Amino acid sequence: LRRGAFAQVRKIVNKTHAADLSVAFRTISPYDQKKLFSMIQDLEQKGLVFSELDEDIFLRIVEDLRVDEIVDILDTMASDDVADLMERFPADLAKEILRKMEKEGSEEVEGLLRYDTDTAGGIMVPDFVTVREETTAEKAIASLQKEYIDVEMPFYLYVTDDYDRLVGVSSLRQLVVVPPETPVRDFMTRDVYRVSTDMDQEEVAKIVARYDILAVPVVDEENKLVGIITVDDVIDIIRREATEDMFKMAGVGEEFVETQSIVKSTRIRLPWLFASCLGGVLAYFIIGRFEASLKQMAYLAAFIPVIMGMGGNIGTQSSTIVVRGIATGRINIRDLWRVVGKELSVGLILGVFYGLVVGAVARITHDQWSLSFAVTLAVMSSMSIAALVGSMFPLIFARLHIDPAVATGPFVTTSIDILSVFFYFQIATVLLNL
Amino acid sequence: LRRGAFAQVRKIVNKTHAADLSVAFRTISPYDQKKLFSMIQDLEQKGLVFSELDEDIFLRIVEDLRVDEIVDILDTMASDDVADLMERFPADLAKEILRKMEKEGSEEVEGLLRYDTDTAGGIMVPDFVTVREETTAEKAIASLQKEYIDVEMPFYLYVTDDYDRLVGVSSLRQLVVVPPETPVRDFMTRDVYRVSTDMDQEEVAKIVARYDILAVPVVDEENKLVGIITVDDVIDIIRREATEDMFKMAGVGEEFVETQSIVKSTRIRLPWLFASCLGGVLAYFIIGRFEASLKQMAYLAAFIPVIMGMGGNIGTQSSTIVVRGIATGRINIRDLWRVVGKELSVGLILGVFYGLVVGAVARITHDQWSLSFAVTLAVMSSMSIAALVGSMFPLIFARLHIDPAVATGPFVTTSIDILSVFFYFQIATVLLNL
Repeated sequence: LRRGAFAQVRKIVNKTHAADLSVAFRTISPYDQKKLFSMIQDLEQKGLVFSELDEDIFLRIVEDLRVDEIVDILDTMASDDVADLMERFPADLAKEILRKMEKEGSEEVEGLLRYDTDTAGGIMVPDFVTVREETTAEKAIASLQKEYIDVEMPFYLYVTDDYDRLVGVSSLRQLVVVPPETPVRDFMTRDVYRVSTDMDQEEVAKIVARYDILAVPVVDEENKLVGIITVDDVIDIIRREATEDMFKMAGVGEEFVETQSIVKSTRIRLPWLFASCLGGVLAYFIIGRFEASLKQMAYLAAFIPVIMGMGGNIGTQSSTIVVRGIATGRINIRDLWRVVGKELSVGLILGVFYGLVVGAVARITHDQWSLSFAVTLAVMSSMSIAALVGSMFPLIFARLHIDPAVATGPFVTTSIDILSVFFYFQIATVLLNL
Repeated sequence: LRRGAFAQVRKIVNKTHAADLSVAFRTISPYDQKKLFSMIQDLEQKGLVFSELDEDIFLRIVEDLRVDEIVDILDTMASDDVADLMERFPADLAKEILRKMEKEGSEEVEGLLRYDTDTAGGIMVPDFVTVREETTAEKAIASLQKEYIDVEMPFYLYVTDDYDRLVGVSSLRQLVVVPPETPVRDFMTRDVYRVSTDMDQEEVAKIVARYDILAVPVVDEENKLVGIITVDDVIDIIRREATEDMFKMAGVGEEFVETQSIVKSTRIRLPWLFASCLGGVLAYFIIGRFEASLKQMAYLAAFIPVIMGMGGNIGTQSSTIVVRGIATGRINIRDLWRVVGKELSVGLILGVFYGLVVGAVARITHDQWSLSFAVTLAVMSSMSIAALVGSMFPLIFARLHIDPAVATGPFVTTSIDILSVFFYFQIATVLLNL
């Protein structure tokens, strides 16, 4: 941001989409970030940028703003986005902001904060269009023109009874194509997909994706309509959940850490490596027990990498298939034995194949059938155990209501490492009479 | 499917959503699958089930249907779904079906097949609503009621000029809230997000997700509107791409294989394991070169698992962050050195930490400072190399326009295994004077 180009930059900034602006923020210095933000003139645009910014940049920018300014910006935003942002503010600041907004009458926001952020209640917006069963299409359109100017995406009209309970749904499109005097009752769909406030957001996303709907209504225990969840929020959930699953399996936390500082990134990744370190140390002690065998046949050690590697890789294959299968609904957690049985079969077949390959290498380099046989058996057992462990762990975790992605990564690799090494040396000791 | 319950099952089948039915298909025998499909009475419902079925079940069912029947079912479906299905039919059958449909005038479907399936042209639908700039809101609504009854999701009206070129967009909602006599020109948005027919579907998904729109128009080279892509298809793309990336990184192909047979699943996974096998064999030869050192100090071998494991795990962390970062647009491939530099720093810090932990274990179990020092150095170098390789490979592949997910999995783990083992023995030989 050179001095001279100031006026020009201001012009560009105010014409750019918030999603694109937030990318620009990532590439400039903290000082320039504050400056760039101050150049945005429109409060609504500022709100949109708020929603799109990475957490650390966001915090840096708000620390320089007055509470009044923040409240003014938040007032322009949809209440679900405000609720999301509230969790990012430092606790003290959040309280102060809420107090201020409350005075100005924002029960909406407070209401949303009541629900857990990962549930339907936490992500819904209270901006929806309702009509009564007896309303005619014409009157419904008229009320859209008058009362619902502010509603974000009014493509569905929800039909409620005298107690505000959800009884049907009609689309804006149906409203336009039926004769104007038809009452909503006559053309509404009574079979409405709905979710309850405490449903997990991942489940909500599955329903919206599955039935190809643009929004799903959220109801409370009494079937009263309290909000809707729109498809654009569902897209964000699906992307975020996929990222989360990948990151959990790799042991790098849940959120994207690339934009965070080196220290923070290190802190997040350190504990996940601990399991693997512990497993490695355990494998060390196991091999230590076989030191006598190793002294006699030092080249036994040379097969450790290939045996561990083959087990580790097929284990990753199995657990990835199962974890993703559970997440997308392709694998039913009740099918445990069928899935595990199939993975074990695949592991056995591949184990025999690669066992023979590695065994052949052993035979060629060392003129000793028993060594070759031991290596073949070790690869085979390592690969079948890995397929078994890799498919069974996530399914068991899912049954125990533990997120399979988070539990699988470190557990699976570590246990496969230990088991592979143990079986290898056990087999070698017996077969080679060590 | 017991005999007695036949009539009852038929009733349920015809009332269930196709997405739910397709799940039921997965759990029953091939014979019952055909029976269940024949129970569906509504042709449209059959079409929906077609779209939702897994490939192997789909093939099994169509092999028993006459071409006429298939064509009747396809006629009820949206043309983008038909185009997707055409690729699933055996080639001969597909040709026959197309010939038959052509006679009945389905240029639409043929037109769609012209485009690559992974591009905007391949996933768009030709069902959209267009109006001219001078049309009034009232007339636009009237034409919706008459001409566009069949359009799947008419929430956007695209405005075209005399040459069918896209000049603006209006929403159904705007149409309803402005005074009826206003011409579209006065309230349309001129700044339309649009994509070209040859844009990759992943890019299309990013645009729809980024700007929170419900549909994006597809234009040809002359800016003529040829189709739209709706948000429900985008959701499918996002989910499928995430699955694909995970599967490629784990080396299990691209498509979901769990529903495929054991033999097919084995065939897909076998080649991916070959890289890891080759790497393991190479590591074997490297260790073989140090057999003399190993004979003197057999317990050197006991540290192989922990050194390989720590390297492998941090390498997976780095490559997962980078691959997912590139896919979601959080990492820019031009930032190569910044990203790699950061990962290397994290790798170094974590390497020092875990190096000291493992070194301490070595010191406690063997009264020898030089061994402890060698192990610390080996863990450190293994972890920093792994972070370097794990972050650099995907970025370089992305720059060379090779899918980073597919190239990363086998390459990264294998090269880390080899490098870790090599550096470990090199360091040990020098430090311990072997």
